[in-house]
Amino acid sequence: MSVLENVLARIDTAEAEIRARYFDFLRIPSVSAQPPHAADCRSAGEWLVAELSSIGFSAELRETKGHPAVVAFHPGPGGSAKPLLYYGHYDVQPAEPFELWTSPPFEPTMKEGRNGPVTVARGAVDDKGQVMTWLAAMRAWHEVAGGPPTAIRVLVEGEEEIGSPSLDAFLEQHAAELCEARAVVVSDTNMWDPRTPAISARLRGMAYAQIDLFAASRDLHSGLYGGMALNPINLLCRILAELTDANGRIQLPGFYDAVPEVGGNLDTAWDSLGFDEARFLGDIGLSVPAGEKGMKPLVRQWARPTCDVNGIWGGYTGEGSKTVIAAEAHAKVSFRLVGDQDPTAVLDSLEAFVKTRIPADARAEVQRFASAPPVVVPEDSAEVSAARRALAAEYGREAVLIGSGGSIPVVESFRRILGLDSVLMGFGLDDDQVHSPNEKFDWSCLMHGARSHARLLAELAS
Amino acid sequence: MSVLENVLARIDTAEAEIRARYFDFLRIPSVSAQPPHAADCRSAGEWLVAELSSIGFSAELRETKGHPAVVAFHPGPGGSAKPLLYYGHYDVQPAEPFELWTSPPFEPTMKEGRNGPVTVARGAVDDKGQVMTWLAAMRAWHEVAGGPPTAIRVLVEGEEEIGSPSLDAFLEQHAAELCEARAVVVSDTNMWDPRTPAISARLRGMAYAQIDLFAASRDLHSGLYGGMALNPINLLCRILAELTDANGRIQLPGFYDAVPEVGGNLDTAWDSLGFDEARFLGDIGLSVPAGEKGMKPLVRQWARPTCDVNGIWGGYTGEGSKTVIAAEAHAKVSFRLVGDQDPTAVLDSLEAFVKTRIPADARAEVQRFASAPPVVVPEDSAEVSAARRALAAEYGREAVLIGSGGSIPVVESFRRILGLDSVLMGFGLDDDQVHSPNEKFDWSCLMHGARSHARLLAELAS
Repeated sequence: MSVLENVLARIDTAEAEIRARYFDFLRIPSVSAQPPHAADCRSAGEWLVAELSSIGFSAELRETKGHPAVVAFHPGPGGSAKPLLYYGHYDVQPAEPFELWTSPPFEPTMKEGRNGPVTVARGAVDDKGQVMTWLAAMRAWHEVAGGPPTAIRVLVEGEEEIGSPSLDAFLEQHAAELCEARAVVVSDTNMWDPRTPAISARLRGMAYAQIDLFAASRDLHSGLYGGMALNPINLLCRILAELTDANGRIQLPGFYDAVPEVGGNLDTAWDSLGFDEARFLGDIGLSVPAGEKGMKPLVRQWARPTCDVNGIWGGYTGEGSKTVIAAEAHAKVSFRLVGDQDPTAVLDSLEAFVKTRIPADARAEVQRFASAPPVVVPEDSAEVSAARRALAAEYGREAVLIGSGGSIPVVESFRRILGLDSVLMGFGLDDDQVHSPNEKFDWSCLMHGARSHARLLAELAS
Repeated sequence: MSVLENVLARIDTAEAEIRARYFDFLRIPSVSAQPPHAADCRSAGEWLVAELSSIGFSAELRETKGHPAVVAFHPGPGGSAKPLLYYGHYDVQPAEPFELWTSPPFEPTMKEGRNGPVTVARGAVDDKGQVMTWLAAMRAWHEVAGGPPTAIRVLVEGEEEIGSPSLDAFLEQHAAELCEARAVVVSDTNMWDPRTPAISARLRGMAYAQIDLFAASRDLHSGLYGGMALNPINLLCRILAELTDANGRIQLPGFYDAVPEVGGNLDTAWDSLGFDEARFLGDIGLSVPAGEKGMKPLVRQWARPTCDVNGIWGGYTGEGSKTVIAAEAHAKVSFRLVGDQDPTAVLDSLEAFVKTRIPADARAEVQRFASAPPVVVPEDSAEVSAARRALAAEYGREAVLIGSGGSIPVVESFRRILGLDSVLMGFGLDDDQVHSPNEKFDWSCLMHGARSHARLLAELAS
């Protein structure tokens, strides 16, 4: 057998060990958005340092302004070939609402899913499970061949789910070391379906903000003050409603100036994918397409911007009735961006949109959270071609080139700061319930993902 | 000295005892809206039974479908004169948000206020403090003269803050016993200012509902599903925004058909009150009039309907950012009503308004809470005239006839079910922070209120 065949065989026989390590990783509640979990984020980083050290990497935790990052290096067989840079993130989304989980979010559990066994846990796929696919491949190469067939540098951050606020500075600080890589390999995207692998060629950007409205100096009785005093919840609802029109078009001035129309070959290629919108919506109990009227579903998901209120709160939310006019109202709002849209400009525009709509005696604050420009990655680089060959060999069918409605801010940062393009080879599925209760990862996706990464390393052997 | 002078002197010398009893009453967290406080509501009723029994009343707790009601009777000096019916409520609003209280809401505390000493506690004025004004007067009459100068029946309910859901049935059940009264005396309204007593001649009605929207079967990732799946928070904001136009006019079909214009003598009388809107708003940190454009402030407060969102919640409301599309969104909405507006018709109209605005794959539920028709009470009855004389004697100036933006559902019930008109003689002030953190009652308002009730009993002696 070839070395690769032995590596693939090793992955298959190591299934139980892979699961044990994967579960250890998942048990760490590394929720980056919630300060009480800061120590858990560091623990997840330390777990990765130990994991990588045990397979021949020189690995360490490096401090950032926020949660620490994991950096590791393996020289491979030596020689002058540039290393590949593997990127992932160890942080996960908050697990709330806990009561909707069928098993505790940080106690990984195997269950029977639509396509066979699945692991249910927060981070099962995003991104701990996807990181596990390439860790398992590297371990197999280590055990079978003493190490990977090419030099590898690893960067795993702990702030992706909050928009990677510290990462740009970190990349700039360590640019000399990181920019020597050939390309970045990222597994944080989806397959087309359980049998069809995919390379993601575009990612939407994001701009995320919290709007805080402040009116009276205290909560008020709605009888004495109704019709007299500003109700900040009514005002917040009006402002948020005015952000989109009845056709789902976002009303920020000039918002669509940098949004390209989808046409020609791209439109044809996406049509040929035969996306089943009814099934996509049916999986989540819906049947009526949302978003912009008159747009095809894949265009709406991959190539059109959105405005979603991700959370809202204010006033009395307990049982029964309380006739109160609240003093404050709050909402979290995010935009998915495409084309040449600039997140900073969008948030500037949002802030102006809000502030021009509040009376002189009210106050509005717009806190800015995550921000990421849209990205289109080259479809024909040597590394993308190698990934397509690896996936075709593993799955017995060609990988399709798709878009992703989600954002991976670091992909744009890698290009802007390090001059590196990325290969987005991911193994998630649309029904993985990413960011939701009962997030899962198909076991077959993890194992085929590990084998695909083992093949990619062979394809890119120096 | 006359008997009345002795009674008034007794009230003055009993100040410390009055405070001790008042504080005992305030320490009972009788929050009717919150099921965990059901036992506390009963305790507050039992406290009143003991209080009334100790001053010569035959008093008892009577069950309702909800929290029990207190009913008591004192024959007075005998004779054939019909009794007066004193009404109040022992339940209070929820104290949330607790963190905004400067002292614990159920540990009454004396503090120095703008016009002298005040008591700070939930229920300090609404309605435990106002009930205390007439309890103190009845106790003084009991101690000085062996009892009140006229027959008195007392009814204190425990569900006013949740819209008195059980009271109509209770009044119907006990109509024979209650309807023999001359009139109802209610202290649950405000003075015009700290030196000017007032009789409230009109109360706005109310209709209160909770809107629950349900969309996808689970929370969704805003990247994968943004532009594809319905966002129920966006939709809820749109629906709530469409409930009012930019001029503050409510958009429910036919909503204003039963709303009379204010003109003629009433308009002149209200103008003559010289309401200081800048001061009214300044007290709560505001300066820009809200409500319907082009309406005078007292008209907006007393004679125009409103639509306020009293609470809203949905999605991620924790720290930082979470890119989620929620499965549900919720809001509590209430309308203040005037003229001949019918609360049931308004809620029917709201439910239709909501349901016609949701797509086929979403679900909307409209839960109905409090409901009360608007009320206008006669200004020239024997009892109202007696109350005006009592107030003029106590304060050395005429009582003014005012409206109230708030609702006291039972006033309409008394007229509809028992055929009884009410005298709304209240001692609250606009800055009492009713329903808000740090609710207070001026000590001078309580003492002058007690003396005013003592005088009213003398005026209405049989």
